[in-house]
Amino acid sequence: MPDPQKAQSEDRQLGAKLVEPLCARLCVIGIGLIGSSILHAAKRRRLAAEIIAYDASADVCARAAEIGLADRIVTSLEEAAAADIIVLCIPVGAMESVGSALGPYLKSGTIVSDVGSVKGAVIAALQPHLPDGVSLIPAHPVAGTEYSGPDAGFATLFVGRWCIITPPVSADPAATEKMCALWSAMGSDVEIMTPAHHDLVLAITSHVPHLIAYNIVGTAADLEEVTQSEVIKFSAGGFRDFTRIAASDPTMWRDVFLNNKEAVLEILGRFNEDLAALQRMIRWGDGQGLFDLFTRTRAIRRSIIAQGQETNAADFGRRVGNDPTQ
Amino acid sequence: MPDPQKAQSEDRQLGAKLVEPLCARLCVIGIGLIGSSILHAAKRRRLAAEIIAYDASADVCARAAEIGLADRIVTSLEEAAAADIIVLCIPVGAMESVGSALGPYLKSGTIVSDVGSVKGAVIAALQPHLPDGVSLIPAHPVAGTEYSGPDAGFATLFVGRWCIITPPVSADPAATEKMCALWSAMGSDVEIMTPAHHDLVLAITSHVPHLIAYNIVGTAADLEEVTQSEVIKFSAGGFRDFTRIAASDPTMWRDVFLNNKEAVLEILGRFNEDLAALQRMIRWGDGQGLFDLFTRTRAIRRSIIAQGQETNAADFGRRVGNDPTQ
Repeated sequence: MPDPQKAQSEDRQLGAKLVEPLCARLCVIGIGLIGSSILHAAKRRRLAAEIIAYDASADVCARAAEIGLADRIVTSLEEAAAADIIVLCIPVGAMESVGSALGPYLKSGTIVSDVGSVKGAVIAALQPHLPDGVSLIPAHPVAGTEYSGPDAGFATLFVGRWCIITPPVSADPAATEKMCALWSAMGSDVEIMTPAHHDLVLAITSHVPHLIAYNIVGTAADLEEVTQSEVIKFSAGGFRDFTRIAASDPTMWRDVFLNNKEAVLEILGRFNEDLAALQRMIRWGDGQGLFDLFTRTRAIRRSIIAQGQETNAADFGRRVGNDPTQ
Repeated sequence: MPDPQKAQSEDRQLGAKLVEPLCARLCVIGIGLIGSSILHAAKRRRLAAEIIAYDASADVCARAAEIGLADRIVTSLEEAAAADIIVLCIPVGAMESVGSALGPYLKSGTIVSDVGSVKGAVIAALQPHLPDGVSLIPAHPVAGTEYSGPDAGFATLFVGRWCIITPPVSADPAATEKMCALWSAMGSDVEIMTPAHHDLVLAITSHVPHLIAYNIVGTAADLEEVTQSEVIKFSAGGFRDFTRIAASDPTMWRDVFLNNKEAVLEILGRFNEDLAALQRMIRWGDGQGLFDLFTRTRAIRRSIIAQGQETNAADFGRRVGNDPTQ
């Protein structure tokens, strides 16, 4: 049932409406958290005259139809290919096979995009399957929650979040511009980068943080001297902050690490070096060294809050009403 | 100015009032986040007939007096010692010197407690300075925000959070019971542990998570290929979750690592082993191994949410109103 109050609040957050749709038909392939959020936002903003969607799972398609995520849920990649803009919202590891199955049906003038967390590998997987006249304009919305599936999406997921567009050097500037307009209309701040630079920036801001969060949660689960129930009980001391990101979709993250191997291993190497130095400071009681690092890291958080990428609420606002800054 | 609505909400969260105060005089030494929160809660619950406070900094004392944190702000450790329960809310590294200065003034029957994040080292620092008849009952409230100072405290900081009490083997059971009652009255769930076990449990649930958060933030700050401004811009991809805990008080955390060296190095050793295995999986493309770990870590988060140690809100409820689960 439509909720007029919710719609109004979403409209306010999404900003000014477009004068006319960006294209005749927009297709989302893969109806998970990101796919369903795009569908919600595209519908609310009317970004295309017709919005269609496809998912490899019949159950997901049925659910998407039930909650009215698209004007039409199509049942084949052939039907999905008949769109002006196609956004692949699928795991990075599925790009190659979906790209090769989709390729033969694509018509000239179509823009193919994606939302994968790595860009070099996605371009390598898709480009060979795209016929002449089809533009590949990869994109990566830096936004998410730990939920997945067609019910997880919401229209304002991308509001105030960055979307990085990584057109290959040969890309048609008009197609790049259209994708920038699409993401702006969903509330994102758009940035253009080379695919290689994107992969390095994301390795430090997202991929390696996820990896070490997964790792510490795994280490905790394997301890014999400390019970699992103790780890859970006392998690408010810091541990729980790692568990949210260690609860993200396993398939998506497996594919990220397999497809951004070089940048992840490079950043991980530096992380390990730094950690070894820190370990040595603790072993040898270098209090000044520890203090200096801990002071330096504070400044970075202040900048993140200042730039609106984080809330200033104590405890992330987890317990509303307890915020001493209010 | 007292705000009756706020007071009412605090009372509701703190639960049933005590029939009579726990002691004639309660003294808090060190008026930072934890000290000022104890003062707020003790005042609201009237846990002592008189509540006094002391801080080594005259500025902090002046500010505490200004915002009415205690019935009386005392200006010497001699005056502070004239209390039935004394809670040291000071960095772990200051325990030895404050303990030795306080010791000569303590009278028999007094309970000395603390709120330090390590317990073995605190007992070793304090015990030699306490005269006969004085009970040392260390405690560690597992709660906090990234804010510090006398303005950071609030009465409900400890509500629904664990407080671990670690009485030495020789402790007077009546004194232990009194400290349990004190923390219960401030809304905490109380758990009793040996100091050594506490230090190991906290190493995995708090100390090592903080260390690796500090470390990744430091690594990010030192990259040459990725600018600081890019790290900040794209921090919503995971990195920012580490910055909150890497913004905690540098002095406190320096002291934690210097004073829980063995347990931290032990857990860090295991973390490093596990990370090396993960690194190897990425290098050799072991997708199944990655997927298995990432699936296993999800279960731990579910338990943390089920046990009320975390909010289930998407994105920690950072953007209220966007929660798709509502």
